[in-house]
Amino acid sequence: MRRILVIGIGAGNPDYVTVQAIDAMNRADVFFLPDKGSEKAGLRALRLEILERFVRNPTPRLVDIAVPSRAKSERYLDDVDAWHGALAAAYRAAIEAALPEGGTGALLVWGDPALYDSMIRLVERIEAGGLALACEVIPGISSVQALAAGHRIALNRIGAPVLLTTGRRVAQATPEEDFVVLLDGEETFARAELAEHEVWWGAYLGTPDEVLVTGRAGDVAAEISALRKRLRAAKGWIMDTYLARRHRPD
Amino acid sequence: MRRILVIGIGAGNPDYVTVQAIDAMNRADVFFLPDKGSEKAGLRALRLEILERFVRNPTPRLVDIAVPSRAKSERYLDDVDAWHGALAAAYRAAIEAALPEGGTGALLVWGDPALYDSMIRLVERIEAGGLALACEVIPGISSVQALAAGHRIALNRIGAPVLLTTGRRVAQATPEEDFVVLLDGEETFARAELAEHEVWWGAYLGTPDEVLVTGRAGDVAAEISALRKRLRAAKGWIMDTYLARRHRPD
Repeated sequence: MRRILVIGIGAGNPDYVTVQAIDAMNRADVFFLPDKGSEKAGLRALRLEILERFVRNPTPRLVDIAVPSRAKSERYLDDVDAWHGALAAAYRAAIEAALPEGGTGALLVWGDPALYDSMIRLVERIEAGGLALACEVIPGISSVQALAAGHRIALNRIGAPVLLTTGRRVAQATPEEDFVVLLDGEETFARAELAEHEVWWGAYLGTPDEVLVTGRAGDVAAEISALRKRLRAAKGWIMDTYLARRHRPD
Repeated sequence: MRRILVIGIGAGNPDYVTVQAIDAMNRADVFFLPDKGSEKAGLRALRLEILERFVRNPTPRLVDIAVPSRAKSERYLDDVDAWHGALAAAYRAAIEAALPEGGTGALLVWGDPALYDSMIRLVERIEAGGLALACEVIPGISSVQALAAGHRIALNRIGAPVLLTTGRRVAQATPEEDFVVLLDGEETFARAELAEHEVWWGAYLGTPDEVLVTGRAGDVAAEISALRKRLRAAKGWIMDTYLARRHRPD
């Protein structure tokens, strides 16, 4: 059987790598990497920096996987399903071609494979398709945690819940609870319904380019929007997240 | 000014320690440790194991802090507030006595300081009380992440939210969303309202004693209760968490 290590390498800061992740990287015969086209150049450089820094094998085998792009229709879940099917086929072909029986392959995941990442599901899908794999998951520091550490706050208030959600959901209905938005294409922090919320926003979290803004959403949304535009133009990409709390006494 | 490093050391597995946390531990002049009485003996041994393994300074200074216990009345938030006041006083006294101006002290937090932990709030409270501190927070792998990695699942379904909450809240009302229970004294997984939920439960996560159970709550709750009783009796303590999902098609 082939062994697949799904390794969380943390969100942005190479120092977020855990001892467990370093050990796992050093057990891998082959690293499967998403092809350049699908990944921001800066992120790919960071991935290679992590391999160079932590893998003691002087010439680890790197296999690029050409990653198909996701259709963007009105049917989000159908699009994701079709995309995952294509991804699973691409990963399976690469694994069968590059990894012998008994070999160990590594898949490096930004942040934590448990949060808004498809790699664990892809491995399941490959297994369901008939390729036997022994899979191990290694957790990593997620951007949510980097956000909280950067702002030096706890995500939850005392005894209170916190919702991890998406911009799409927040646009549909403002959560009652404190919430963190992980995938936000639409600057939901600027929505009128959130004007009275306190927000803790961050981009490029964990990297030397980290930017943090905090305040009442109604006061800081325009500043964050302008920052996003400027930074995205300068770097070619942006990844950001935020925590939002209804204004109410603690 | 004194520098305080709030260092997340991960949940249970010393290999969860990050490179950033190791570097931070090696910048500390003094480690402030909660006194034995307040911490399970097994956890204290694990904490010392982490220091021994990762701190290169051969004789780091360790300062024990006698930790007051929390009153348990019907007014949970008041109890917590009074307890935090007493804790802040104890930590402040220890910091002022053991850490000179310009020195760096470390506070080691299980899991991630951002999730259901009071250390960041304590430091804020000490600062609000008039002791100037430069504080840095270093994130760590939380038990929620250890749970997901152990079960090899993502916490969220595709595009869907996940609520991090407490047993107390779940006992008041069953969340609509998928949820993770972090503090559960009352075996809320066994509640009748959750019988049709799928649960992924784990105890002693990340440690060699890790136990995982998954299934329909109605089918596995009795087994988990029995396990909890037996393990708690054998080890003297138990820490557990679970993810629960309403049964519905993906």
